[in-house]
Amino acid sequence: MQDLDEFTVTDAALAQMANTADPRLRQIMDAAVRHLHAFAREVNLTPAEWLGGIRFLTEVGHACTPIRQEFILLSDVLGLSAVVNALHDKTALENGTQSSLLGPFFREHAPEFALGDCIVAEPGAPEIVLHGQVTDAHGVPIPGATIGVWQTDAAGQYDLQAHDHETMDMRGNFTCDAHGKYHFRTVRPLGYSIPLDGPVGAMVQRQGRHGMRPAHIHFLIAAPGFRELVTALYFGDDDNIASDTVFGVSNSLVVQFAASDPDNPIPGLRSVRYDFQLGHARADGDGRVGADPASLVAAE
Amino acid sequence: MQDLDEFTVTDAALAQMANTADPRLRQIMDAAVRHLHAFAREVNLTPAEWLGGIRFLTEVGHACTPIRQEFILLSDVLGLSAVVNALHDKTALENGTQSSLLGPFFREHAPEFALGDCIVAEPGAPEIVLHGQVTDAHGVPIPGATIGVWQTDAAGQYDLQAHDHETMDMRGNFTCDAHGKYHFRTVRPLGYSIPLDGPVGAMVQRQGRHGMRPAHIHFLIAAPGFRELVTALYFGDDDNIASDTVFGVSNSLVVQFAASDPDNPIPGLRSVRYDFQLGHARADGDGRVGADPASLVAAE
Repeated sequence: MQDLDEFTVTDAALAQMANTADPRLRQIMDAAVRHLHAFAREVNLTPAEWLGGIRFLTEVGHACTPIRQEFILLSDVLGLSAVVNALHDKTALENGTQSSLLGPFFREHAPEFALGDCIVAEPGAPEIVLHGQVTDAHGVPIPGATIGVWQTDAAGQYDLQAHDHETMDMRGNFTCDAHGKYHFRTVRPLGYSIPLDGPVGAMVQRQGRHGMRPAHIHFLIAAPGFRELVTALYFGDDDNIASDTVFGVSNSLVVQFAASDPDNPIPGLRSVRYDFQLGHARADGDGRVGADPASLVAAE
Repeated sequence: MQDLDEFTVTDAALAQMANTADPRLRQIMDAAVRHLHAFAREVNLTPAEWLGGIRFLTEVGHACTPIRQEFILLSDVLGLSAVVNALHDKTALENGTQSSLLGPFFREHAPEFALGDCIVAEPGAPEIVLHGQVTDAHGVPIPGATIGVWQTDAAGQYDLQAHDHETMDMRGNFTCDAHGKYHFRTVRPLGYSIPLDGPVGAMVQRQGRHGMRPAHIHFLIAAPGFRELVTALYFGDDDNIASDTVFGVSNSLVVQFAASDPDNPIPGLRSVRYDFQLGHARADGDGRVGADPASLVAAE
């Protein structure tokens, strides 16, 4: 029992959570409460604004369904997902290729392709070729590394948006050759808007943001003994390359079409070359970036 | 376009929100993003822990129904509601009685009683009397101030829990006399547990907390020209008086039964005396603590 004010409430809350058996849960909740209270004090949050926040979070929760994860979208547009990604990169044993957001459109059991295949069933736009090599952090090739790719079509839609929910398109898995090399055909993807029909979209619009992601191709690259890499390559000529709504773009992940590419495995097609570096996995197993990525779509 | 790390993501997010038309929304979201990112950096939040947080918030959202507000419960057990209350108290023109949480059991259109009436239909426990005076911050009586009271029964249940949803019991409205005085009969309420069957209850249990609120009586006191007071009186002999799960108890709101009470308006009953002070309302209208209190139950 004490005199409670906006500071002593924090002390009381931390004291009451001090018996948490799991030390990591205690550490996380201790920090969460301190930062949450500091936020409220900094802005002098009023009861009406607090209630507005309660209503907003409730709407975000109600917008979450088995096929839509509005809280992940909220985390993305607030930059939290990108912060978590950056923190995860720092825990790597070696500096490999920078990671980027997994996003909600990853799907397991995508079709297996042979090197050189096109991942788009009916291109309807000029084909392009992506190629390069997967190595370790010291440039040593990783034979047989697996590469999963997924992207939008030339109109900015993923298969889940352009087709029925059974069809897989604009995605597939490849296995690198004995030199760690890969190449595949696709179309240039188009950038797209995040879903603006929910509470997060309404917030983004009130913030005067365009809500667009620049054109990109997702990659999930893995090999035994290496830390799994979830990343994406972004097309540098996209109008929104400098203002990605979910903060996935970093300089090292921006690509351009090659003006001249003597290594182009399919001469005649415009090519993008990108080499990926994987760091070794920790002995304690830090392979996966998330939990099961499929569960990210429906975090239930 | 830039090199994104766990710090520059924050800069990028703030820059992208800088066009927010509403300056207060900009201020709040700017602070929210800074504190959210600082929290993630402080604890080095991992992707798996981040996903755990996403799942938790989704569960809290799904637990919100027209008759249950799990996000308000979360705010309460994290101490945020008490911080917002304390900040609101500081905006008063004058120091009146300290406020306390409204809680989810306030109901509009409670029965009107005459001074001295009992608010409990079938007491089933010894009656007690509460009495006192409502004055301004300088001790000048406020004739005709209205007092709304609500509480649990002697078993720790509100009417909404003990009866069907139409019945109103253990609650009512009184009008003070020409000297600002009030008195009414009731039973001693019992403390109770917050709902432990949802995600917030699971969190509280993982934190090793008892989840109990000490016995209390809620008050909502109003008079024209004065700032509305939402508060509660807490019984000092309750076992949990020093560890309220929602941090509503402050020294100035703790009461005891009078050992001797010459002013007891109903001699023979045990009495509690408490005088309330209201501050004047601001010209810009700061009368209400929340928005419509009834909306707190179903913030939809």
